Amino acid sequence: FPIGGRQQKPRQAGLTMVIDKGLGLTEFRDLLEVAAPYIDFIKLGFGTSVFYPAAILQEKIRLARSYNVAIFPGGTFFEVAVLQGRLNLYLQTARELGYTFIEISDGTIDLSRTVRLAAVRQARAAGFGVITEVGKKDPRDALSEALLLSQIAGDQEAGADYVIVEGRESGQGVVIYDGRGAVKEDILAGLLAGIKDLDRVIWEAPQKQQQQALIMRLGPNVNLGNVQPGDVLALEALRVGLRGDTLRTTLKVAEVS
Amino acid sequence: FPIGGRQQKPRQAGLTMVIDKGLGLTEFRDLLEVAAPYIDFIKLGFGTSVFYPAAILQEKIRLARSYNVAIFPGGTFFEVAVLQGRLNLYLQTARELGYTFIEISDGTIDLSRTVRLAAVRQARAAGFGVITEVGKKDPRDALSEALLLSQIAGDQEAGADYVIVEGRESGQGVVIYDGRGAVKEDILAGLLAGIKDLDRVIWEAPQKQQQQALIMRLGPNVNLGNVQPGDVLALEALRVGLRGDTLRTTLKVAEVS
Amino acid sequence: FPIGGRQQKPRQAGLTMVIDKGLGLTEFRDLLEVAAPYIDFIKLGFGTSVFYPAAILQEKIRLARSYNVAIFPGGTFFEVAVLQGRLNLYLQTARELGYTFIEISDGTIDLSRTVRLAAVRQARAAGFGVITEVGKKDPRDALSEALLLSQIAGDQEAGADYVIVEGRESGQGVVIYDGRGAVKEDILAGLLAGIKDLDRVIWEAPQKQQQQALIMRLGPNVNLGNVQPGDVLALEALRVGLRGDTLRTTLKVAEVS
Repeated sequence: FPIGGRQQKPRQAGLTMVIDKGLGLTEFRDLLEVAAPYIDFIKLGFGTSVFYPAAILQEKIRLARSYNVAIFPGGTFFEVAVLQGRLNLYLQTARELGYTFIEISDGTIDLSRTVRLAAVRQARAAGFGVITEVGKKDPRDALSEALLLSQIAGDQEAGADYVIVEGRESGQGVVIYDGRGAVKEDILAGLLAGIKDLDRVIWEAPQKQQQQALIMRLGPNVNLGNVQPGDVLALEALRVGLRGDTLRTTLKVAEVS
Repeated sequence: FPIGGRQQKPRQAGLTMVIDKGLGLTEFRDLLEVAAPYIDFIKLGFGTSVFYPAAILQEKIRLARSYNVAIFPGGTFFEVAVLQGRLNLYLQTARELGYTFIEISDGTIDLSRTVRLAAVRQARAAGFGVITEVGKKDPRDALSEALLLSQIAGDQEAGADYVIVEGRESGQGVVIYDGRGAVKEDILAGLLAGIKDLDRVIWEAPQKQQQQALIMRLGPNVNLGNVQPGDVLALEALRVGLRGDTLRTTLKVAEVS
Repeated sequence: FPIGGRQQKPRQAGLTMVIDKGLGLTEFRDLLEVAAPYIDFIKLGFGTSVFYPAAILQEKIRLARSYNVAIFPGGTFFEVAVLQGRLNLYLQTARELGYTFIEISDGTIDLSRTVRLAAVRQARAAGFGVITEVGKKDPRDALSEALLLSQIAGDQEAGADYVIVEGRESGQGVVIYDGRGAVKEDILAGLLAGIKDLDRVIWEAPQKQQQQALIMRLGPNVNLGNVQPGDVLALEALRVGLRGDTLRTTLKVAEVS
């Protein structure tokens, strides 16, 4: 491959997290059959998982696990559970369904630092892998860089396996992206300078230009999230330089050196 | 659910109409299996239905009906039939294929009021449910608010079960949407003030921001159309507040009250 | 149909080339089952084909051929093979897999005229149909109109069956499209004036507005490429006037004449 060093599964970095907004069972099986080696996580987006017929949801979870892909419900679901004071019930239901990871976020609600870290510990104690998310969904709620960095470090210390940097499904006007979806270089640079364990940070990057920008910046083994199911192989091509955009830069670098 | 009052099928309001641009049979079955409780209508978009192998089209229609989802061919097909003076043949073919609804539109052609209402009555007499559509597809043909309101009222009086407000597949530069797809508040407000039976009006809203805006404005049981097949569960999450955008507003309202 | 003269398969012109970014096997079968009569070529985009499990890739190729659809790997793959001095191996592997066409491009790398034409002849000698591509993927590398015309003519003379005009997956900022995806009329007109054998030129046109513009300009039998799998029937409706956009113009023309 033009770009070398891509890690294979199970990998420590270079994770791809796919967002599933409601794939049918055949499509889901199709996706795993063709692309499971390139998928590390599947998130059942927002609160969609509550609408599935029980048999289909269980079969999805079973299928993902049989392909060594971790699967978890979107954080909005967790936020509603916390709001309604039902975190215990939420974790119990998640375990019965077969989920192995839980996403802990406060993209929409406000969660005190204490409650947030307690939830991380509670989920871990219940045997789940934990993915937290930092960043507000609404631009009006945007957090400062210092606060984001402090949350990332705090979550990692409390035992979160991975911390997601919010990018939404749109990738527009949120944390490191401007209103058109372009990477805000100053904010990204600020975060990169302050994050200690980059291999445990997942950048939501739904748009191809965002995936490309982050691969050019952080290499083929950057962790990327909110990847559309139909884009997994195209992303893998980007990672290893089998697509014009990253191939070109590789060539230019080769010419110079 | 954070937002209560969502109606279940068969429902009087809160209808979701999906646009199918040519799903294969397995994808179509997948969609119904996972999301039929959240789909009221499927429109086979534009004139696409004429290109299907006969066996596939018949199976799609049979499948939709078996899941209690109404299915109908796009209005462009009707417009061409009228242009060619073959409305009778069109209705007869539609009945043989098993369609139970007909869309009557003049998004592209010009139809006199008399001819339009005659077509509504003729389709009803032939045993079909009737969905009419108001609004021109091309911005150069845009109709006045008064004319739109008069068409909506006239169609409903003539027996149309539902009236669709044109949004196209793109949701841009048409009736209530500006060139970027944002809702034109003044036009929407004007229409809302003049429409008598809102439960029988379906707003085409292909983009998420449009679905969100209309849900925030008109509640979880607004009728929405031209929803992409892959967006049905995400829309349902929006309707009941299991997605950041509508959840946030629900919380803000709760704080204030 | 409102617009007449649409050619049927096997056709000399009016070809539709679909880009496949990684469809699963069931989706792929679904697509062929419903739309094969409207698909002439399927391109396995970029370098994605290298990531498939071998059995799935072979079955895709077999399926496409059984539906009389030609299938070929994206040109990026060829470019990497040339860079690595492994064109022979590439052609041999392609033959073993069952591909019948090869795409020869230099969208990202620089290829001398001599090497390019030698590759065309070598692929033909190896028994492949040949599709070349003109135009650079990166706007910074844009070629002059004269050079594009000279490449198109040269490729056709050297035996290329078809020459693709680069449009990328996005359709933005490349050859005949500006940054927003609109057709640059002056460049298109310049190319049209200079191309001798238009039936052997395929315009990549991923966006609907681009497909529409080219159909209105060049008729229903224009060759179009990088069509999304889910858009094939919608494109066919555009071609024959069963969609508002082309139907409207047809009617306006009919009124005037």
